[in-house]
Amino acid sequence: MATAMSANAIWTLLTTVREKQPLVHNITNFVVMNNTANALLALGASPAMVHSCDEVEDFVALSQALVVNIGTLYSEQIAACKLAVAKAHGVGAPWILDPVGAGATPYRRAAAGALARLGPSVIRGNGSEILTLAQQAGEGRGVDSLHGSETALEAARILARETGAVVAVTGAVDYVTDGARVTAIANGHPLMTRVTGLGCSATAVIGAFLAVEPDAFAATVAALAVFGVAGEIAAEQAIGPGSLQVALLDALYAMTQSQFEQRLKFEKG
Amino acid sequence: MATAMSANAIWTLLTTVREKQPLVHNITNFVVMNNTANALLALGASPAMVHSCDEVEDFVALSQALVVNIGTLYSEQIAACKLAVAKAHGVGAPWILDPVGAGATPYRRAAAGALARLGPSVIRGNGSEILTLAQQAGEGRGVDSLHGSETALEAARILARETGAVVAVTGAVDYVTDGARVTAIANGHPLMTRVTGLGCSATAVIGAFLAVEPDAFAATVAALAVFGVAGEIAAEQAIGPGSLQVALLDALYAMTQSQFEQRLKFEKG
Amino acid sequence: MATAMSANAIWTLLTTVREKQPLVHNITNFVVMNNTANALLALGASPAMVHSCDEVEDFVALSQALVVNIGTLYSEQIAACKLAVAKAHGVGAPWILDPVGAGATPYRRAAAGALARLGPSVIRGNGSEILTLAQQAGEGRGVDSLHGSETALEAARILARETGAVVAVTGAVDYVTDGARVTAIANGHPLMTRVTGLGCSATAVIGAFLAVEPDAFAATVAALAVFGVAGEIAAEQAIGPGSLQVALLDALYAMTQSQFEQRLKFEKG
Repeated sequence: MATAMSANAIWTLLTTVREKQPLVHNITNFVVMNNTANALLALGASPAMVHSCDEVEDFVALSQALVVNIGTLYSEQIAACKLAVAKAHGVGAPWILDPVGAGATPYRRAAAGALARLGPSVIRGNGSEILTLAQQAGEGRGVDSLHGSETALEAARILARETGAVVAVTGAVDYVTDGARVTAIANGHPLMTRVTGLGCSATAVIGAFLAVEPDAFAATVAALAVFGVAGEIAAEQAIGPGSLQVALLDALYAMTQSQFEQRLKFEKG
Repeated sequence: MATAMSANAIWTLLTTVREKQPLVHNITNFVVMNNTANALLALGASPAMVHSCDEVEDFVALSQALVVNIGTLYSEQIAACKLAVAKAHGVGAPWILDPVGAGATPYRRAAAGALARLGPSVIRGNGSEILTLAQQAGEGRGVDSLHGSETALEAARILARETGAVVAVTGAVDYVTDGARVTAIANGHPLMTRVTGLGCSATAVIGAFLAVEPDAFAATVAALAVFGVAGEIAAEQAIGPGSLQVALLDALYAMTQSQFEQRLKFEKG
Repeated sequence: MATAMSANAIWTLLTTVREKQPLVHNITNFVVMNNTANALLALGASPAMVHSCDEVEDFVALSQALVVNIGTLYSEQIAACKLAVAKAHGVGAPWILDPVGAGATPYRRAAAGALARLGPSVIRGNGSEILTLAQQAGEGRGVDSLHGSETALEAARILARETGAVVAVTGAVDYVTDGARVTAIANGHPLMTRVTGLGCSATAVIGAFLAVEPDAFAATVAALAVFGVAGEIAAEQAIGPGSLQVALLDALYAMTQSQFEQRLKFEKG
């Protein structure tokens, strides 16, 4: 079943983020810390980048959402993520997992799989990351036989059912599913793949929407729609990936409701 | 007592930084390492970002100033900061403390407090960071009863008296005090709060001025004036926080004396 | 003997990078991770920034080239570099060493020297870094008596002969030597020294060319020519270092063959 939110409902959520300025706690990788924090600030949220085991629990208790990203994984970070996630469950804060490069190495596959089993509100990845997690979660249930353009979406559905998380698989089209419902968002621009860490920024932006909207499906759809439209506006002004990154932060900050409504594009399910 | 430096004296210090290109050693957080180094380079200083306990002492001995920033704190970094600070005292190099998020967690409060007691030349923070440190340093002496717009400045005065440091509390107006004298700088722009780590960049720029000016009060006032004016120039050209960050580095590099003098704005004490 | 490649041969290599999108594994410093990844993406390569001892070997096995950069050195990173280098030799992947700040501290000198002795395909540094390594590698063979403008190139020749690596020493003019042949590239712009980590980006770009061209000398010359021309294009559009960094990424992405050929400038040997 294909489901779409109204542009107006999404814009209302963005307005809520801007008004409430939720504190979003990020345990993320060293490559994207700066532009992730900047994406959250441009959007109107308050980022915190805190990863020491000595304080992540205390920080989660102050935050409205937690973002866990395994980009530049190392062993103390895995421990910090697990401590933070346990605390998030304890205080009832939503959290999102970005399983960067989940399938690339056994170390990364194990860490991503372990975190996915800890009950994230949302998992966002690209097709191969989601497929890796779905293969682990739903072993022997048909994931291996998936192929072609349907693979990523089918893997996302399976992963959602197995973990209870809303799963977003982003690419030329972004799919969001809770295992039953599916929304497909056709915004964004190919040049975005030439800037490092825009997937990580998208994950953090979902975190900001989760902080103000208890329905994880709606929060994820809204966040990816806003991020995709901002990327599209930025790409039209950009000469290349350098100016795209700058313009994307500007667009997250300065995008108007009419710009958003004119560009928002759901795909028929 | 309110004190202001002449625009000409500040410009002379900036010229000295550009000519001497002092080596400024930064032990700072992972979020801002890149743009801190770029702010120092744009200004005309030579940044070094070195944080291993295995070499911080050797690096301090080569440097004209040390910047200690606890943004993404972890236990080896605290040790590295303490080793570096001891060496700075040994070789007579000035150092500045940026107590990022000092009040947010017990771990951070303890680390910031311990470093503040080690005799920094300057401490720069926002209102709540300075208040946290003042409460620790001047416990039972009236900090808890502070409130309203006067809080930050009063806390800064108390912290300056207790630690012997020049204290800068930055915000819509930046205050610099040594416990007796106060200078208030009204440059800068609200959009600067939407870019991550500009406070950290301001701290590093103070470090560059400390490297060439033994009077820590004058160095701090000059650095914040230059940084605030550069931010103002940048904000006028910016569409949002992405273009602001780019334009700020350009302004630190390309600002002219007449631009600076026309914009410099002290507030009456 | 001075040697130059044809502009056409260099452009063909760039086209190969863009087509093959080689995976370039970087173990690099925290200051430049973001803009190094962005330089590789803008060029058309696929960057991976992975530094944990728990997975560097697995990642090297997936990659077409390895970049080792000691900018923000710490002890686990040295171990990770050694593990990755051993694996690169095992799988026959080329690797490049960037000995950032090699002479600054005993710790850094030891680490850079140890890595240089492990058989890199290429070493790229500035004059003083290459001189430090040459003094270690060729002790007592005349390096100490070098002086003046010839120093860097002579040190590079000695280092190349001692280590078997192609050595690039970059500055106002970039020299590439294998101990016998020398190519001198006169592209680039002085403003590039005001942006942090552009040397590190140049090293990574060499890594991308090494991934598609087995002749390390040709790969290094081609990469530095492309990077220098991109920097030149960017500097002409830039107001200062902020806009230079943005324009450099755009130029790496959007540079055309005719732009490249018009600007390419070898110096007579």
